[in-house]
Amino acid sequence: MASSLHIYVDYLSQPCRSVGMLCRAINAPYKEHITKLLKGEQKAPEFLTINPLGKVPSVKDGNTVINESCSAMRYIATKYDTSGKWYPNDLDIRVKVDEYLDWQHANTRRHGAGYFYNKIIAPMRTKQPINMSVVNEHEKELARVEKEFVEYFLASKPFIVGDHLTIADLAAAAEFEQPLIGGYDLSQAVRDYLKTVKAEMGPVYDDLLKDIKSMLKA
Amino acid sequence: MASSLHIYVDYLSQPCRSVGMLCRAINAPYKEHITKLLKGEQKAPEFLTINPLGKVPSVKDGNTVINESCSAMRYIATKYDTSGKWYPNDLDIRVKVDEYLDWQHANTRRHGAGYFYNKIIAPMRTKQPINMSVVNEHEKELARVEKEFVEYFLASKPFIVGDHLTIADLAAAAEFEQPLIGGYDLSQAVRDYLKTVKAEMGPVYDDLLKDIKSMLKA
Repeated sequence: MASSLHIYVDYLSQPCRSVGMLCRAINAPYKEHITKLLKGEQKAPEFLTINPLGKVPSVKDGNTVINESCSAMRYIATKYDTSGKWYPNDLDIRVKVDEYLDWQHANTRRHGAGYFYNKIIAPMRTKQPINMSVVNEHEKELARVEKEFVEYFLASKPFIVGDHLTIADLAAAAEFEQPLIGGYDLSQAVRDYLKTVKAEMGPVYDDLLKDIKSMLKA
Repeated sequence: MASSLHIYVDYLSQPCRSVGMLCRAINAPYKEHITKLLKGEQKAPEFLTINPLGKVPSVKDGNTVINESCSAMRYIATKYDTSGKWYPNDLDIRVKVDEYLDWQHANTRRHGAGYFYNKIIAPMRTKQPINMSVVNEHEKELARVEKEFVEYFLASKPFIVGDHLTIADLAAAAEFEQPLIGGYDLSQAVRDYLKTVKAEMGPVYDDLLKDIKSMLKA
């Protein structure tokens, strides 16, 4: 059967890694299109016909186009995950997946990506020194984010909903890895959580981190 | 039947208005608990037992606690909306509701709330002059947000999914009203959209805006 599920991604990007990780984990019948951020391919006219917002990930399935990663994961899990585990149908469990996904936008993602961008990407692009006051602000917020994540969302459970991975953990792991790779000193509790997610995911976990790690070594 | 659905809200807050608006629109069997932000009640010990993150809205339904407004709306609509319109079950329509809700965190909400906070709340609290460079940055971003909202999310339709209101429109309307009330010059297209949402919602729309409008007059 020809695949109708197309994902446009660059694995330098955290939300692209979440979507790619899910597709691999559930063995979805997807076709991957690498859209190189560093070459500006997400702003190219042909890509803008898919996502006028000029961002990745973008997901196309038949006539349905999804230009937000959390929405894309909800959709892909609902349609293609036969185990029903990744985005559980039970409303009381599902709402805890949603709660983390909604919370992370202004927390894990905002400050993890903000830290990485200002510490690594901005100086590379502008050839200017790092703006340390902005980096320090993100560091301070990340410490709060880690605390709230560990105490409220994990609350002594191995994963966000309890004993198994969901799309919320894929988002959390992808976003926490980024500042860690950029040199942020993550707490031991969050490092332990990442280790648990990685053990559960298997080789795909490191595989999707290869691009960002080799970019930093270059 | 005694209601098990409790909502903790202050209608000065945009996400509280979205949740309150939904409960009223679908006639959910809810009990409202006003938690006064200006009195710091969201940080009081008894409230922190409900939401340790110290924020409103908070929603409690039996043993399920939800501390994110978009997740709360998904849950409440799924459980209590008999029309099935507010968070449609059809996956292709539902994902467009999700897409807006995911997008708005870093866009409509971030810059609408950022504009309002820095222009109105911060000077009230600190008795310092408005930080115009921060306000101007939010204004610039809001202009982009409006353009993307009108061109991508509305795309000539009256509402986000087409011909009827969903929880995505409740979030959009609540967040766009805030900078408008704070003096931001919204585009005619977004003003027209708000008028359409208000006409569809009826008197509850203005009713939930009363608190924030009278705070600014005081």
